[in-house]
Amino acid sequence: MLFLVRMDVHIPHEMPAERAAEIKAREKAYAQALQHDGRWRHLWRVVGEYANYSVFDVAGNDELHELLSQLPLFPCMTLQVTPLAQHPSAIA
Amino acid sequence: MLFLVRMDVHIPHEMPAERAAEIKAREKAYAQALQHDGRWRHLWRVVGEYANYSVFDVAGNDELHELLSQLPLFPCMTLQVTPLAQHPSAIA
Amino acid sequence: MLFLVRMDVHIPHEMPAERAAEIKAREKAYAQALQHDGRWRHLWRVVGEYANYSVFDVAGNDELHELLSQLPLFPCMTLQVTPLAQHPSAIA
Amino acid sequence: MLFLVRMDVHIPHEMPAERAAEIKAREKAYAQALQHDGRWRHLWRVVGEYANYSVFDVAGNDELHELLSQLPLFPCMTLQVTPLAQHPSAIA
Amino acid sequence: MLFLVRMDVHIPHEMPAERAAEIKAREKAYAQALQHDGRWRHLWRVVGEYANYSVFDVAGNDELHELLSQLPLFPCMTLQVTPLAQHPSAIA
Amino acid sequence: MLFLVRMDVHIPHEMPAERAAEIKAREKAYAQALQHDGRWRHLWRVVGEYANYSVFDVAGNDELHELLSQLPLFPCMTLQVTPLAQHPSAIA
Amino acid sequence: MLFLVRMDVHIPHEMPAERAAEIKAREKAYAQALQHDGRWRHLWRVVGEYANYSVFDVAGNDELHELLSQLPLFPCMTLQVTPLAQHPSAIA
Amino acid sequence: MLFLVRMDVHIPHEMPAERAAEIKAREKAYAQALQHDGRWRHLWRVVGEYANYSVFDVAGNDELHELLSQLPLFPCMTLQVTPLAQHPSAIA
Amino acid sequence: MLFLVRMDVHIPHEMPAERAAEIKAREKAYAQALQHDGRWRHLWRVVGEYANYSVFDVAGNDELHELLSQLPLFPCMTLQVTPLAQHPSAIA
Amino acid sequence: MLFLVRMDVHIPHEMPAERAAEIKAREKAYAQALQHDGRWRHLWRVVGEYANYSVFDVAGNDELHELLSQLPLFPCMTLQVTPLAQHPSAIA
Repeated sequence: MLFLVRMDVHIPHEMPAERAAEIKAREKAYAQALQHDGRWRHLWRVVGEYANYSVFDVAGNDELHELLSQLPLFPCMTLQVTPLAQHPSAIA
Repeated sequence: MLFLVRMDVHIPHEMPAERAAEIKAREKAYAQALQHDGRWRHLWRVVGEYANYSVFDVAGNDELHELLSQLPLFPCMTLQVTPLAQHPSAIA
Repeated sequence: MLFLVRMDVHIPHEMPAERAAEIKAREKAYAQALQHDGRWRHLWRVVGEYANYSVFDVAGNDELHELLSQLPLFPCMTLQVTPLAQHPSAIA
Repeated sequence: MLFLVRMDVHIPHEMPAERAAEIKAREKAYAQALQHDGRWRHLWRVVGEYANYSVFDVAGNDELHELLSQLPLFPCMTLQVTPLAQHPSAIA
Repeated sequence: MLFLVRMDVHIPHEMPAERAAEIKAREKAYAQALQHDGRWRHLWRVVGEYANYSVFDVAGNDELHELLSQLPLFPCMTLQVTPLAQHPSAIA
Repeated sequence: MLFLVRMDVHIPHEMPAERAAEIKAREKAYAQALQHDGRWRHLWRVVGEYANYSVFDVAGNDELHELLSQLPLFPCMTLQVTPLAQHPSAIA
Repeated sequence: MLFLVRMDVHIPHEMPAERAAEIKAREKAYAQALQHDGRWRHLWRVVGEYANYSVFDVAGNDELHELLSQLPLFPCMTLQVTPLAQHPSAIA
Repeated sequence: MLFLVRMDVHIPHEMPAERAAEIKAREKAYAQALQHDGRWRHLWRVVGEYANYSVFDVAGNDELHELLSQLPLFPCMTLQVTPLAQHPSAIA
Repeated sequence: MLFLVRMDVHIPHEMPAERAAEIKAREKAYAQALQHDGRWRHLWRVVGEYANYSVFDVAGNDELHELLSQLPLFPCMTLQVTPLAQHPSAIA
Repeated sequence: MLFLVRMDVHIPHEMPAERAAEIKAREKAYAQALQHDGRWRHLWRVVGEYANYSVFDVAGNDELHELLSQLPLFPCMTLQVTPLAQHPSAIA
């Protein structure tokens, strides 16, 4: 089932640059692995913000929380989760 | 280019049922036509609300406004438009 | 899986009293049927408000939307849905 | 009587990891003790957030405040308390 | 136990004046009866608004909801309930 | 005349514990002195929050600001002041 | 003592034009009488809005509420009242 | 001097179509006249909303309020006015 | 022309006390100079808050921004500016 | 196509003055280069705030995000992006 997730990233100013770079590299690898296995269906940048809208396809709430809470940037993020359902006018 | 749009529908209580049904039928036909021609890429119901999240793929702002303002339910909707960009970690 | 749902009811002042009473009677019957079959796990009144917090146990997002959108009072309600997951400190 | 409580945890980035781990361990023990004695009736994780929704069953406002203010993570939390009452359509 | 309640009154413009006057008269009688029996401990007008802050002293959540939901103006009010506890610096 | 005041306390995490304890002790003494002289009429804890609702009885706006701005915790507080008037349904 | 008051006017679309004109005429006369007697010290239009910011000089909260609640447009207004005190850097 | 103005239009559902069309025609003529005389410098549609962002160039606050309050759609609009100043990095 | 300005001051806890005192002294001198030359027409304390409401009388937007941005406390303040116009019911 | 962008700058108090000055100098040079090449069409200061409203003219969402995310002050800014379309009453 599908969930829309908005992620806003707020990296503290006092975090050393190498530390931030290392976390972001792990975040990118993690995001790409989940895209390849099909659970992170869409990943879009919000124009002008350090934020994204994503769509996840998971078996349920517990799997989604496990995926999100393991994001390397999770402690620096604010997340909003919206459960999605089939729309009666959708053709897919 | 892509835009995320949230649409919240508020049909006035005093609108006659046949009138509402007629508008909804036109809305559905319009939504399906735009999905078939590829400009309305995704259409998801927000669980528990008379609302949807949609993704549009259009040539630009003017085309998007034209599409949205011609929605049969447009006078009964609140819309929020978020421009999307390519995310550096996206694989697609 | 579990979802917390807050429902705020706003019955229009101009709705005739018998019409409102009839909808509320259907709402009650519907709510009790879903409680008996185990999908509407909890139903609590918010003190001082015409509102409730409920917990639903369903197979997924589509089932939840179907249940909620068939509430007789659905056109007079504002709903907020929060997906819930297992908490690591929960004993149940 | 019952109260719904939402707890949002914000651990400061500068707190040493061992200190945070020690507080969380005490928090978990405290939460489980209160669940065993029946006063912390439900504890659910909010999907995608370092937050929970809980239901407490206590004798009154003073007991609830005493329980909540003794949470080891209390200084790092934002809490919202909603008093609950019996719902006329509830079967339990 | 004590609860702070803010009540904001919004009487619809289309309600006939006599109907409004009749409801307000019943509201006043009800409020004074509850003040005399000690359960409506304080009742203050918010300056410049058709609103009040009140303090109720009741046995619990269910009793408070019963009192509030029977207010003659209840269908025209927005209520906010805040549970209060003993403050460690209070001398009373 | 009466004013309702809500005070939310936010002590910075980096304040040394003894410093915080010393300020809180002065706050308590100050609050109790003002209660004894009759100007701090009510002091209630908000359940689950490091906050209180208070009622002050003062000669006017200037006296109230002087009392509040001398609170030892004033630099760590957010305050909201609501002027109160006699309610036509109040019996006192 | 002084109070800043913001008034936002929302006249219902269905009010007949003559009725609205009559209320506005009484409002103007009332506002000017209070300005002449010195209690309505300032009256400014908010640019682009059917709203004003005003400063009242009254003996206290009860007098202010009495003045405001007798505004002919009171049932069509939203009011926000802010008590003001002497500023230590003010020269007047 | 310049002001940014956002205008959101909310035409009541019960307004007859001819009446709405007549007001909109006058609005358009008025907007074009002010653009031609140079005081309404920019007029942009907000994508997906019955709203615009505009820039006005006027002699001062009084002139701006006079222009805005004479908009034929003024009674159906919510306006937000932001005064603008020369930016030190602007080349014009 | 007139502008209402609300200023909320937030001095960081870590600023040394002498540094804060020196900035406040300069702020006071600056505020009094502008009051004497007639451009800072009113300066009122918001009761219970480290905030003020002020009225400025300046030639236009650029002059106002220049005055405000030179406030010694400007980097520690949040400001809200509301342009004011002549009110048709004002007698002055 | 055009986008309205509001930028609010929040430079951390602990950033050394030279570091801030160096970033601001790069920001100014960057802003002026984009104004000269025509993509940063308007740049206005919001009166009384460390903020601006700007209008960008770009080929699409991706170009806008690239321009904005390369602002030297981007890590210290909050941005809001509003896509604009041709208004039917605009003469240009």
